[in-house]
Amino acid sequence: MTTIQDVARHAAVSVSTVSNVLNGRTDRMRAETLARVEASIQALQFRPSKLAQQLKTGQTPLLGLLVPSMANPMYGYIAREIESVAQERFGFRLLIGSTYRDREKESAFFEDLLAHGVRRVIVISSLADERHFESAVERGMAVVSYDRGATPGKPSKVGHVMPDNFEAARLATQHLIDKDHRRLAFATVAGMTMSRSAKIDGFFAAAEAAGLRASAQVLDGGALNEYGDSVIAEVGRATALQIAGLPEHPTGIVALNDLMALGLMAGLREAGLGVPEDVSVVGIDGLFLATLSNPMLTTVQLPVREMARAMVERVMQHPGEASEDEREQVFTGVQLIERESVAPPPAASQPRIARRTKPEKAAP
Amino acid sequence: MTTIQDVARHAAVSVSTVSNVLNGRTDRMRAETLARVEASIQALQFRPSKLAQQLKTGQTPLLGLLVPSMANPMYGYIAREIESVAQERFGFRLLIGSTYRDREKESAFFEDLLAHGVRRVIVISSLADERHFESAVERGMAVVSYDRGATPGKPSKVGHVMPDNFEAARLATQHLIDKDHRRLAFATVAGMTMSRSAKIDGFFAAAEAAGLRASAQVLDGGALNEYGDSVIAEVGRATALQIAGLPEHPTGIVALNDLMALGLMAGLREAGLGVPEDVSVVGIDGLFLATLSNPMLTTVQLPVREMARAMVERVMQHPGEASEDEREQVFTGVQLIERESVAPPPAASQPRIARRTKPEKAAP
Repeated sequence: MTTIQDVARHAAVSVSTVSNVLNGRTDRMRAETLARVEASIQALQFRPSKLAQQLKTGQTPLLGLLVPSMANPMYGYIAREIESVAQERFGFRLLIGSTYRDREKESAFFEDLLAHGVRRVIVISSLADERHFESAVERGMAVVSYDRGATPGKPSKVGHVMPDNFEAARLATQHLIDKDHRRLAFATVAGMTMSRSAKIDGFFAAAEAAGLRASAQVLDGGALNEYGDSVIAEVGRATALQIAGLPEHPTGIVALNDLMALGLMAGLREAGLGVPEDVSVVGIDGLFLATLSNPMLTTVQLPVREMARAMVERVMQHPGEASEDEREQVFTGVQLIERESVAPPPAASQPRIARRTKPEKAAP
Repeated sequence: MTTIQDVARHAAVSVSTVSNVLNGRTDRMRAETLARVEASIQALQFRPSKLAQQLKTGQTPLLGLLVPSMANPMYGYIAREIESVAQERFGFRLLIGSTYRDREKESAFFEDLLAHGVRRVIVISSLADERHFESAVERGMAVVSYDRGATPGKPSKVGHVMPDNFEAARLATQHLIDKDHRRLAFATVAGMTMSRSAKIDGFFAAAEAAGLRASAQVLDGGALNEYGDSVIAEVGRATALQIAGLPEHPTGIVALNDLMALGLMAGLREAGLGVPEDVSVVGIDGLFLATLSNPMLTTVQLPVREMARAMVERVMQHPGEASEDEREQVFTGVQLIERESVAPPPAASQPRIARRTKPEKAAP
C-alpha cells in the first residue's frame, strides 16, 4: 500500500509538503511542486482520503460495537441489524469486540476506539457500571448502551435503548399462569444486570397478581465463564438438573433468554422430564433458533430490528443533541409467540402424584 | 475529542508544525515552539499515536474480517476465536462486515479497508472468484481466505485455510453406511462453492466405495437470500419436505452443515418423519447448538480453533513471507461425534414396507 512517505519520495519533496497538498495548504507552494506532488499521488494511486480526514477531524466512519461474546447468536442477530443500518444509512463500518462482560476488557476497548478516532459506540449488555462510558462521552464520544437503563436519578449523557424486559417476563409468566401452572420458576445465570433484574421483577409481578408469590422462585444455574455466552445454554442445562432434583419441582419456567431455554429443555430431557408434558418452558428473545428446537420454543419476541435502528440513529447524533428524555428509549413492542413448549401441568392440583410418575418417564 | 487542529490553535502554531512535532521532525524548530506544542499536546490530552502512526505507515492495528452473515452462529464461533488470537497475541481489533456472499459488497468492503489503512484481512466462505483478493494483495494487503482452496494450477498470493471438507463429508457418509443405510442423500443449498463441492465429492466417494453410488443423491433445498445464513435452516426445512415427498425417500442424510441439519430435523418432524427412527441425519461443523437439539445431532467436528489460530498467524505475516506451500493449509483433524440422530434405517432391505408405515407415524 502506498504511504505518504512513498509519495514524498516519488515527488522528491518532504512529507510535510505532501501533507500540505492533501490538506489544501498550497497558497505558498510553487506551482511546479504542487504539480509534481499531484502527479505522484496520481501515479502511485495514493488514497489518503479517510486517513487524512481522520487526522484532520479526529474521527473516522467506524462504529464501535461491544458485545459480551460474538459466539452468542442473539448478539450476532443484533449485530447484523446494527451493521445493516450503519452501513446502508450512514456508510459506517463496524469495529467489533467481545468483552465477556469484563470491565477491564471494556475499558481497553474504549481506549482503542478513542485512539482509532472512533467516536460512536454501541455497548451491549454490560455488567460493569457506566463510569467509563461517561468518561468516554466527556472525551467526545457518543455512547449508546443496549439493555441497560440509566441509573435512576443520575443524569447521564449515555443513550439507553432497551426492550421492556419487565413486560417481556411478565407476559411469559402470565402465559404459564393462564395454562394453570402454579409452581413457577425464573431460570437465570449468576450475577445481576439491570435487564436481568427487570425480568425478575416482571416474573414476580405476574406471580403476585395471581396469588402465586409463595410458590414462585428464582433459580440460578451458575455463572458464565470467559467463554461467555455459548455457556448460557450449559447453565440452562445445569438448572434443569437442579429442577429435577427439587422435591416439588416447578412446572412452569420462564428462562432468562432463548439460549438458556434451549439448554434447559435439553437438560430436562436428560433428566427424564418431558417438555411440555412435565415441565413447560418459555423463552425471551425470539431467536430463529427457537423455531428449530423440538418442541419448538414458545417465546417472547423482542423488537430487535427496531431497537437496532434506534441505537444507530441515536449514536449518530451529536452527544449534545438528544434531550434528557430521548436518552432512554424503552421498546414496549414485546410479543408472546406460542409454539409447542407450553402445556397445562400434569395433575396440576396434585403435585405429589405427578412426582411419583417420574421414574417411569426417566426410562426412555 | 481533541484534534490536531485543536492542538495547533492552543499552541498558536500551524497544523504542519504540530504534525512535524508528532513525527519527530523538530531539528529546524525553535526550542520555544517545540515546548509550546508539547505543552498543548499535554494540556489537551491529545492522543495522536495510532492515527499518526497510520498516516505514517499506511497501516493500522485492525484486522478485517468478512463473513457471509454475522447472524450465522458458525461465523460467530469462528469470529470469536479469530478475535481472541488477534487481540491477545497481536493487539489487533476486528473490523467486521457481512457480505451475504455478494461480490459487490465484498469489493466495497475491501475498498473501505484499504482507505482505513487496514492491511490484513480474513475472508470467510466467499462465493465470488478471487480476482479482487489478488488485486488487494497487489496493493499491499495480506489476505487469507477461509474454506476456499486456491484455484488449482493458478499461483496465488492469497493464503488459504480450510478444513478437509472432503474427509468431513466422507466420514459422515461412511457412518450412515456403517449403520446400514443404503439410500443416501447430501442436503445442500443452491449455488456451488469450493467447500460445498468438496463435501459433495466426499459424499459420493463414500457411496461409491460401498457400491451405493446409484442410490446416492444431492438435494438442494433452495438458495440463500440476502438475509443469508439464518435462512440455511429454512432451506433445510424445505429439503425435508422434498424428502418426505419422494417415492423412495433417502433414509440417511448428510447435511451441508449443522445449521442446515437442525432445519432438516425440524422439517422432517413436521412432515411426520421421525429422526432417527425413519431418517438419520449427520451434520458438519460441531456447533454447540448441535448438543441442544432433540435428538442431539451427530456431527463431524471441524478444528475451528486451530484453523482460526492458523488464519491469524498467516495473515500477520508479510504477504511475501509465505512459500507457495504454506499458502494453502488443509486441516485434516475432522472427527465424527456420535450423538442421537443416527440409527439403522427402518426395514433397511425392504424400503416399500417402511414407506407404508409412514401415515401412522405422521399422526403423533
